[in-house]
Amino acid sequence: MNFENLLAQRTQKMGENVIREILKVVSRPGMVSLAGGIPAPESFPMEIIRELTNVVIKKYSSSAFQYDLTEGFPPFREALSGYLKEKGIQASADHIYVASGSQGVLDGIAKILITKGDRIAVEAPTYLGAISAFSAYEPEYIRMDTDDEGLVPGSLEQALNKKIKFIYLVPNFQNPTGRTIPLNRRKEIAEIIIKNNALLVEDDPYGSLRYRGEDIPPIKTFAPDHVMYVSTLSKVFAPGLRIGFFHAPELISKWLVLVKQGVDLHTSTFNQALAAEYLSGGHLKHHLPKIINLYGPKQEAMLNAMDKYFPNSFHWSKPEGGMFIWAEGPKGLDMEALYWKAVEKNVAFVPGKFFFTAEGEGIETMRLNYTMANAETIDRAVKTLADVIKGEL
Amino acid sequence: MNFENLLAQRTQKMGENVIREILKVVSRPGMVSLAGGIPAPESFPMEIIRELTNVVIKKYSSSAFQYDLTEGFPPFREALSGYLKEKGIQASADHIYVASGSQGVLDGIAKILITKGDRIAVEAPTYLGAISAFSAYEPEYIRMDTDDEGLVPGSLEQALNKKIKFIYLVPNFQNPTGRTIPLNRRKEIAEIIIKNNALLVEDDPYGSLRYRGEDIPPIKTFAPDHVMYVSTLSKVFAPGLRIGFFHAPELISKWLVLVKQGVDLHTSTFNQALAAEYLSGGHLKHHLPKIINLYGPKQEAMLNAMDKYFPNSFHWSKPEGGMFIWAEGPKGLDMEALYWKAVEKNVAFVPGKFFFTAEGEGIETMRLNYTMANAETIDRAVKTLADVIKGEL
Repeated sequence: MNFENLLAQRTQKMGENVIREILKVVSRPGMVSLAGGIPAPESFPMEIIRELTNVVIKKYSSSAFQYDLTEGFPPFREALSGYLKEKGIQASADHIYVASGSQGVLDGIAKILITKGDRIAVEAPTYLGAISAFSAYEPEYIRMDTDDEGLVPGSLEQALNKKIKFIYLVPNFQNPTGRTIPLNRRKEIAEIIIKNNALLVEDDPYGSLRYRGEDIPPIKTFAPDHVMYVSTLSKVFAPGLRIGFFHAPELISKWLVLVKQGVDLHTSTFNQALAAEYLSGGHLKHHLPKIINLYGPKQEAMLNAMDKYFPNSFHWSKPEGGMFIWAEGPKGLDMEALYWKAVEKNVAFVPGKFFFTAEGEGIETMRLNYTMANAETIDRAVKTLADVIKGEL
Repeated sequence: MNFENLLAQRTQKMGENVIREILKVVSRPGMVSLAGGIPAPESFPMEIIRELTNVVIKKYSSSAFQYDLTEGFPPFREALSGYLKEKGIQASADHIYVASGSQGVLDGIAKILITKGDRIAVEAPTYLGAISAFSAYEPEYIRMDTDDEGLVPGSLEQALNKKIKFIYLVPNFQNPTGRTIPLNRRKEIAEIIIKNNALLVEDDPYGSLRYRGEDIPPIKTFAPDHVMYVSTLSKVFAPGLRIGFFHAPELISKWLVLVKQGVDLHTSTFNQALAAEYLSGGHLKHHLPKIINLYGPKQEAMLNAMDKYFPNSFHWSKPEGGMFIWAEGPKGLDMEALYWKAVEKNVAFVPGKFFFTAEGEGIETMRLNYTMANAETIDRAVKTLADVIKGEL
């Protein structure tokens, strides 16, 4: 049986996942992948996890395995209140909500706000997972300019003239660019949001992965009533547990909870209990420096190698944290064609054009990840990449 | 800030969750709740879970905590292949997919198939969680008649004349009625589905909870190409782990995976690893009889008490398994009014009208659950209920 005729209009428009197809070769034996966006398995606190499973079973017993509130497991929400306070966000436990990864929040916010054809504003380039969540609800994307300091405030103002449902931003070590919006620009963005009575979705998965420099407060702290702050424990605990959370204007939270009931009832109680103990037991504080000591040198290795090998016609970001470096080649360079040549030499990355909502943008760009390989491999892979690039120029 | 004006059309139509409001009183101290639909915490295999957490951490190490395939954790899909074979369903591991509870499947199937206004066919009454998943996509419901043997095949045929996107059924110990569709009627339903080239979603959360009588093969076994079989480990392992799974026609599976990527990337790897070991280690086989020995006597206590105390004008289901009994009072009885009187006497149940998609149906019906209370409490609560009913008649 073929049920093609049963598909909803939204599904018929989805089409194949082109990037997934392209990246299939990444799992070939011998491939060095700078294409991933996933944490190194060595970054997981395995000993702590082993200990916490016992703690949770003893402390919460069967209640850690029972159905639970859609809003989230109360001890975890309590722990998150303290966690967010350290980021400058004041929120009581009953105003913080849990989701199945931050992906679950992105799906939910689109579901409650987007009627087909509604406009949302995103950075160019922006996070691919957000696009994958939003597009199911058939919005129109309004692209906003970015520069080395992230979103350009003037471009945000222009977008807000176009009846935007919400703005989506990753201000810290953005995926894919690694860029961070500096303090003054954050304040400026907050002012624009407030002045326009707009809703900003501030997605912050990487903020804790800072290897140099000073933390910058979330935009949420400058416009608390207009910003929905979204984060996850995927990069500082374990992504396989699928734990995300958010603090949002009350109406938004109310509808997100109602909608989540229909999507998955609630997020795994057991995993939330583990996360609660990880935060409240002080384990994150103890473990985070180890993750930073693991990633910092890898990033340094990549930046040094790019300095050494990449041609002068390339320009790239120098992030103070996160998981990615963004490189732009000279206009006219076809990075997807270059991808296939690099893959022949057993080095993979992500061609940058996939992170743009507008056709034809970012043809000459690439995203590089440094969390999975070791420093030596990174140096060798960047050299190989540079050789392929030079052959192409 | 109030963002009411930002809500999508679908959200504006959702309205408050009436039943959730009504059931808030259930958590009052001293209340005996026959309203729930959740497994008894004593049914969870806590000792096995403790053991399996150690097994999983040792066997899979960090890979049980890493991002994983949207399709599901391979060892779990392998174990599910054996599990489904025992139910008569032949499926290789790579054709079985994992979801975040069966709720996740219900959300997904609606998302890929329903354009606003499309028709889907459901039993009257039907499972509330399915309605909560489907309604976000704004379908029109076509109600199908049921009797003591579940869905009436003639009513299914009539529904299929109306251009239905899919049919949703719970053939085993249905929620809310406890009814099971007998073998011959399943074959008849399968024939109708095949003849009409229709797609059936067969939801089977309770099939393993059989206290008497013989297992009946899923409808899927009689129409393998037309049926999507959905199930969960929530009733036989632990609901807090949020583990569901399905086997569907290939096109349906393909789109469900693509859509799930946007909703939650994948289901908790750790929990899937626990589930894999629970099935493949033979623990379910060992533990299931204990669950049945726990629930069987509770069900008997409720059926006996209803025989003893309920008035003759009431008619109720006598299920051979599951978690619910469905009772119908004489026409004209307002079960919601009766609910509030019963709650005053500290006994709660669910008024049946909430399980119908058509306004005005099921006013005189009720759903009773027996998994949470002990036999003695059940007897006393049913007596109290019967007294309230008699006062009302």
